Parts: sequence; C-alpha cells; structure tokens
Amino acid sequence: MSQHSIAIIGVGKIAVDQHLPVIAKNPAFRLAALVSQRGIEQAGVPTFRTPAELYAAMPDLDAVAICTPPSVRHQVALEALNAGMNVLLEKPPAPTVSELADLVRQAAARRCVLFATWHSQYNAGVEEAKKRLAGRKIASLAITWKEDVRRWHPGQEWIWQPGGFGVFDPGINALSILTEIAPEPFFVTAATLTYPANRDTPIAARLTFASDAGLPGAALTAEFDWRQTGDQTWTIEIVVEDGTRLTLIDGGSKLAINGNLTVAEPMAEYEGIYARFAGLLDRGESAVDAAPFHLVADAMVVGKRETTDAFEW
Amino acid sequence: MSQHSIAIIGVGKIAVDQHLPVIAKNPAFRLAALVSQRGIEQAGVPTFRTPAELYAAMPDLDAVAICTPPSVRHQVALEALNAGMNVLLEKPPAPTVSELADLVRQAAARRCVLFATWHSQYNAGVEEAKKRLAGRKIASLAITWKEDVRRWHPGQEWIWQPGGFGVFDPGINALSILTEIAPEPFFVTAATLTYPANRDTPIAARLTFASDAGLPGAALTAEFDWRQTGDQTWTIEIVVEDGTRLTLIDGGSKLAINGNLTVAEPMAEYEGIYARFAGLLDRGESAVDAAPFHLVADAMVVGKRETTDAFEW
Repeated sequence: MSQHSIAIIGVGKIAVDQHLPVIAKNPAFRLAALVSQRGIEQAGVPTFRTPAELYAAMPDLDAVAICTPPSVRHQVALEALNAGMNVLLEKPPAPTVSELADLVRQAAARRCVLFATWHSQYNAGVEEAKKRLAGRKIASLAITWKEDVRRWHPGQEWIWQPGGFGVFDPGINALSILTEIAPEPFFVTAATLTYPANRDTPIAARLTFASDAGLPGAALTAEFDWRQTGDQTWTIEIVVEDGTRLTLIDGGSKLAINGNLTVAEPMAEYEGIYARFAGLLDRGESAVDAAPFHLVADAMVVGKRETTDAFEW
Repeated sequence: MSQHSIAIIGVGKIAVDQHLPVIAKNPAFRLAALVSQRGIEQAGVPTFRTPAELYAAMPDLDAVAICTPPSVRHQVALEALNAGMNVLLEKPPAPTVSELADLVRQAAARRCVLFATWHSQYNAGVEEAKKRLAGRKIASLAITWKEDVRRWHPGQEWIWQPGGFGVFDPGINALSILTEIAPEPFFVTAATLTYPANRDTPIAARLTFASDAGLPGAALTAEFDWRQTGDQTWTIEIVVEDGTRLTLIDGGSKLAINGNLTVAEPMAEYEGIYARFAGLLDRGESAVDAAPFHLVADAMVVGKRETTDAFEW
C-alpha cells in the first residue's frame, strides 16, 4: 500500500466535518492542498483559489476529492481528469444522468480512477443486511425517510430550485442503501411527487418498485417526507421470504432482526469511503454506482405531480 | 452474410406500417413468426399469443423485434434474452433509465445482441450533418419540434399519463438526432416543462444545453410543442464556427446548407434500422445509444414546471 497525495476541492461543511479529519487519520493519504474560492486555509498545506492553480503547482498530485455543490461537479471533475488526477466525488456525483455517464467514459479513456461516493452505503448495518439478503427473495420492503428540512437544510434555497433534488437529496441516501443491499435491481414503476405551491422541487415523494428480488405481489415502497418534526425517521424494513424481518435504523448504522438489535455501531461512513478509495487507487480501479441516481431520475420521469401548501422557512 | 430468422412481438401500427414490409424486402431476414395478444395474422407465418409460446415452439429463432408499448418492454426483452434471443427494441427502448441499463447488462451477460433503435437517426440528412460537424465547433443550435398532438396521437390517453413522456415522445426523436450528429456530448442545464392543468405529462418544453462542442457563449436550445396546428415543424438549425448554416428539415430527411437544399431523400428509416441490425447480428455486436433517453430524464430532473390551459381532445 502506497501513500496517496490528495487535495480537497470545495472546502464547505462536509469537507470540514468529514473529509479533512478522516484524511488526517488515514495513513494511506497525505493531504497536499486545498482549493477554496473563499480562501479557507489549514495549517501545513497550501490553499489555491482555483483547481487550475493547483494542477499547475502540483502536477504530481495523485487525487482530488470534489466537495463543491453538485451543479459544477461535472466541469470540475473533467478538469481534474484532464490534469491526470484520480477523482473522488461527493454525493450526488453529478446534476444529471448524462453528466455522470460522461465522467465514467472520460475517466476510463484517461485510465484515471473515478469513485462516486454514497456515504450511507458505508454503515455496518448495511453490510450485514446485504449478506442476509444475498440470494433471498423479499416479501416486502418499506423505506421510510422522514426528516425536518428546516433542521437539516436551514435557509438552503438551492434545494428548492430546479435541479435542487428537493426531498430526493436525503431520499437518495436511502436509495443508495437499497441498490447496495438488493440481491436484484429495483425499478420505479410509479411515483407521486408532492410540490409546495411556491417551489420547484418536491417536499415529499412516494415510490413503488418492481424487482425480480421480490416475491410475486410483494409490496415494495419508499416514502420520503421533509415535513417531519420531532423524531426523525431513516428506516428500511424488509421482510424476507422466510418471514425474517430486517430493520435498518438510523440511516443504516443499526440493524434489528425480528426486532432485536443485532448491529449497532457508531457511524464511520467517511472512514469507510476513504478506506475504499485507497484500495481503488492501489488497484487502479474505478467504482461508480449510478443506480441510486438513476432511480431518482426515473421517479421524476414516471412521477405524478401534486401540489401542496406553500413552503416558507 | 447469413439470413436471420426473426419474429415480431407486438403487431400494432408501427409493426404493420414499417417492420413487416421492411423485413419482407430485406434478404438478410426471414420473418418466422408473429406474437400478438389480439391474434393478428400474416399469411405464411404462425402467430403466437405469448412470447413464451413462441420460444417453446421455435427455440432456434435468431432474433425478435419488440414493438409493444414501452411500459412492458423491459419484461418482454428480459424474457427474450433469457430464451437466448437477439433483441431489437422500438423506441423508446424502456420506460426508465434503470430498466434500459439493466437490459444492457443482461444482454452482455448472455452474449446476446441488443439493439435500441432510434428511427430518426437513419435519415440521409442526419448522416451528412454528422460528417460536416465532425471536429468542428458550434456557434448556435436551435431545435424546433412542433407538431399537432391531435393529428399524430388522436385519443391516445397513455401519452398524458405519468410515464407517458408527453411532448418528449416526439421530442426524443430530435434528441436522438442531436446525440448522433454532435461531435461532443450535450448536457441539459435548464428546462421549462409546460403541463396542461388536467394532465400528468408536458405538452411543451424548452431546453437549454451546454457542450464542449459549442463555442463559448453559444446558444444551444430546443423547443418542443404539441400545440402546433397547420404546418408541422421538425427542424434542427446549426451554425458552425465558420458561419456555415446547416438546417435539418422534416425530421432529418432533408439538409440545407446556407439555405440551399443539399440532401433530400425519401425517408428510409426502417430500411436503415434493419440493415444495421443485420450487420450487428453478423458481428455479434450490441448497439444501445442511451443518450437520447438520458437527456429526457435530465430535462425532467432539472426542469421547472409551469401550468397551462387544460387539454381536451
């Protein structure tokens, strides 16, 4: 295992909360630089204002982690690939299906590693659920992802703007767990998307799936809602063909089997992400799971739209 | 070149108008059977009620052409691949991005040929435009696709139902020409989707693109409208960096250069489709261009929704 030099592009909340401390404690990485338009600095490493300045100053850099807002991610990632960098992408990896597909092609053409991260996939309960579902049929699946938008995204106007994903911003985390643990692909067959009268993205959504993983007639559903006050709910409940009930709780960090807590570990999502990235870099392999993103696009394509009360912060 | 036996699944208007006569005059194919729930027959070939009956009776069949409504296409195609068939798909190839990606994986795993057709790509003007754009930059692109829904889809309620695509049903033909001729990929950066107050799919849409094929600041747009009475418009106008103006007219069957008609051939879209399918079968190659479909999904993801007058037939 070699040590990989890495720079972070876009030093916002997720970079400060997760990427920087996790890189600092992983010996497989050495933080070489930051790129911050606002000039955010960290002791011991240079800060550049633009990626172009970074690549000019450090042509031997191994990798960059792109933590900018999604809208510019394709452009920033393409510039990195053109500079010969290996690239880690925060979620969602791109604003559109086409841009993500293009990045996969471009990385392959340049023989660079491209890694699209989905942080929720790195919880201990997720791994255990995947093992227990392997080769099994599902009698029912119910995703319930209900949180308070005012608590988690206070004042973030971009989430309500066209392309801002709305409640699919958290919902895609649930879908990324589903695509990770499902023994066969899931497809959206119907959806209801609930838009505030004054907003351009949904505040709630209900999805119905079909899958060869389901027994005939199995109810396979997801419910996302951003209007949940009080207790927050990030739960996936699956009944397996033999009647066993798997409940992923708190976003996948806990797993209950028939109501008995079997896995309950502290969240270590970004530790898992960087451990995996180190392995991908060592092997020169890319890993881009486009399936969660595709399910969101599909829900928007097949979704029936309904309007609800206007939303104000 | 060997002769390939082929069956048609779903004997509706497009099969009768195009697939059957084109297969009849192409010596690379021999029509072996029809599958029709309604029991539609043709002299000299058997009709089966279900694909399963077809595969049981004719296990040595080479290929099937799937002309059913899009909603069941994934299931019908998967059943065909499981029976070892090579598969041709009418447009659109599937109702969702995920189902199309799944079919690509499944066909590759079985070493079957999968061919997703986009009929508009097979016009003579399209090929010529592609040649003239190769390696060039685009100063402007304006797609104008305006037709009368009452004339082309009389009484077809499914086009207004969730997942029915609305004006993207014709619009995707224009997008399939764009992805064929464009020297670099195009991405949807913004869209306005206009929904009748009483319908679940758009009756009009305006799209804005970004592309490395465009000069800096180039206007790259598409306008789709289903409310056009009188003359119908299926035009793509491109100004190349040197000022040359290419105009694809009548869905790509004609090409004007600086206003002078340069290509004007009768439409032979399905002849081109089956000529290409024969080559793919001979070489054991698949051809699935998912890009037009992705652009539609992207427009739905980033699109701003607006409401217009209710639509009644």
